[in-house]
Amino acid sequence: MKFSKVAILGAGLLGGSIARALTAQKAICGEVFLWARRQETVDEVDSAGLGLTATTDLTLAVEDAEVVILAMTIGSMGGVLAKAKPALSPFAVVTDVGSVKEPVCLEMPEILDGAAHFVGSHPMAGSEQSGFAHSRADLLESAVCIVTPDQTTDPAALDTVRDFWKLLGMRLLELSPEKHDQIVGQVSHLPHLTAACLVHAATTAGEEGLKYSGGGFRDSTRVAEGPSAMWAEILLGNRRAVLDSLEGMEKEIQKVSRWLENEDKDALQTYLEQARVTRSKLRPGKGHE
Amino acid sequence: MKFSKVAILGAGLLGGSIARALTAQKAICGEVFLWARRQETVDEVDSAGLGLTATTDLTLAVEDAEVVILAMTIGSMGGVLAKAKPALSPFAVVTDVGSVKEPVCLEMPEILDGAAHFVGSHPMAGSEQSGFAHSRADLLESAVCIVTPDQTTDPAALDTVRDFWKLLGMRLLELSPEKHDQIVGQVSHLPHLTAACLVHAATTAGEEGLKYSGGGFRDSTRVAEGPSAMWAEILLGNRRAVLDSLEGMEKEIQKVSRWLENEDKDALQTYLEQARVTRSKLRPGKGHE
Repeated sequence: MKFSKVAILGAGLLGGSIARALTAQKAICGEVFLWARRQETVDEVDSAGLGLTATTDLTLAVEDAEVVILAMTIGSMGGVLAKAKPALSPFAVVTDVGSVKEPVCLEMPEILDGAAHFVGSHPMAGSEQSGFAHSRADLLESAVCIVTPDQTTDPAALDTVRDFWKLLGMRLLELSPEKHDQIVGQVSHLPHLTAACLVHAATTAGEEGLKYSGGGFRDSTRVAEGPSAMWAEILLGNRRAVLDSLEGMEKEIQKVSRWLENEDKDALQTYLEQARVTRSKLRPGKGHE
Repeated sequence: MKFSKVAILGAGLLGGSIARALTAQKAICGEVFLWARRQETVDEVDSAGLGLTATTDLTLAVEDAEVVILAMTIGSMGGVLAKAKPALSPFAVVTDVGSVKEPVCLEMPEILDGAAHFVGSHPMAGSEQSGFAHSRADLLESAVCIVTPDQTTDPAALDTVRDFWKLLGMRLLELSPEKHDQIVGQVSHLPHLTAACLVHAATTAGEEGLKYSGGGFRDSTRVAEGPSAMWAEILLGNRRAVLDSLEGMEKEIQKVSRWLENEDKDALQTYLEQARVTRSKLRPGKGHE
């Protein structure tokens, strides 16, 4: 048994999937507590019969937990952590699942103020769906998890967090919070916005065109089905990096437009070929938004 | 038996899939001829043992055929049709599988000059793969096929082409060549270019970021793996409509950038929510680029 108690705060897609994965592999931890804000969600979790304690009681959830996971939108994390703080064990390691790391990795240690350790995490798993109803025990398996230590991170706490995600079958990578946000701005937040822009661009004159769309349009826009409130928060949380990515995207579009304007087939084909070759290097694997 | 002989000119992904579908359902036609430019391809087709005649002899392929399908890139169609013309039956109906319709629907009737009828088709099936090796008997099944008659189209020929695709299990829609190109510019060509732009935008500073990418980036860029020469031709063939779509896309990106710049969460969230709702109306179905 690696951990005697793990507390997951938030029973959405990720929190629920972590809970399912932990309870499916009894060897990882003794007790799993899953906190949800609403009794309704607790009832939903209870009826799944996972062999864990679901509760709306934050103190009950976090006391004596060795690992505490903030599995909620980044805007809610500070408030929940501040409330949980008095009940945290001084040996607790707190981590999170947020898609933006710089603000989270600044704010959480400030709130904890030495009461427990914090290490930022970004398990890159998810889908356009959300909520406990869509959680799955294998959502995180084989997916990438980026941990984001900075100069203030406790090395033992970092090891704990790394071990935790590894036990869930994740592939670990490490980046500074700043570098994380820049890269994720390009490979996750930019595609998300582009998908929304594509949907709008294709329907400015009405939705007639959609019935002529096929798998290409469908795949290119899939991520646009993600929950809008969560995504607005993520994109604003990473707005500098996202704005840079959008500027880069605009430049690419202008380049391509110029070649089309000038009927420069060679330049266009070379560009498409480079994209094809680069794209073909992506390894198939688990979903991530 | 609906047709006694069908000739498919071109043994790539689409030509091969049409041949497989026709030979899998014996009731549709008596003889299937599949023409390929290279003997190598003919040998490849022969070794698949489909019960059809594969040949590099254009005359042999088209003589007495009631339906002739140009299943090649749009740039090659004119040359092949001109060569096939002397051997065409005057009752033959020629159609094609090109992704751009206005130039094709102008050029082919001109070449035929009354020697046979032409009706444009765009079976919206495909994948990022190409070549006979990837062809499948079920590629067209349940996918949309847009037929694009204009004022000069013979009504009986149109019926023949409609019947042909219906027998292959396709769902038929009808558009003028101009309207087709405009809509497909938005729902197919724009996503294709956007995918290539996303790959380039995410790798301007090197390919490191790719290892942090997941299912979102992968799906958003899938179509960028399509064959670059074919796509350069398609995009240039539809350059006016594609340029309009790109301009629309740029406007959307600028809109979103402004909201991020001004931290206008409400506007951003409303925009994402509208995209989510629109996107959720897309019916799942077969692949199309």
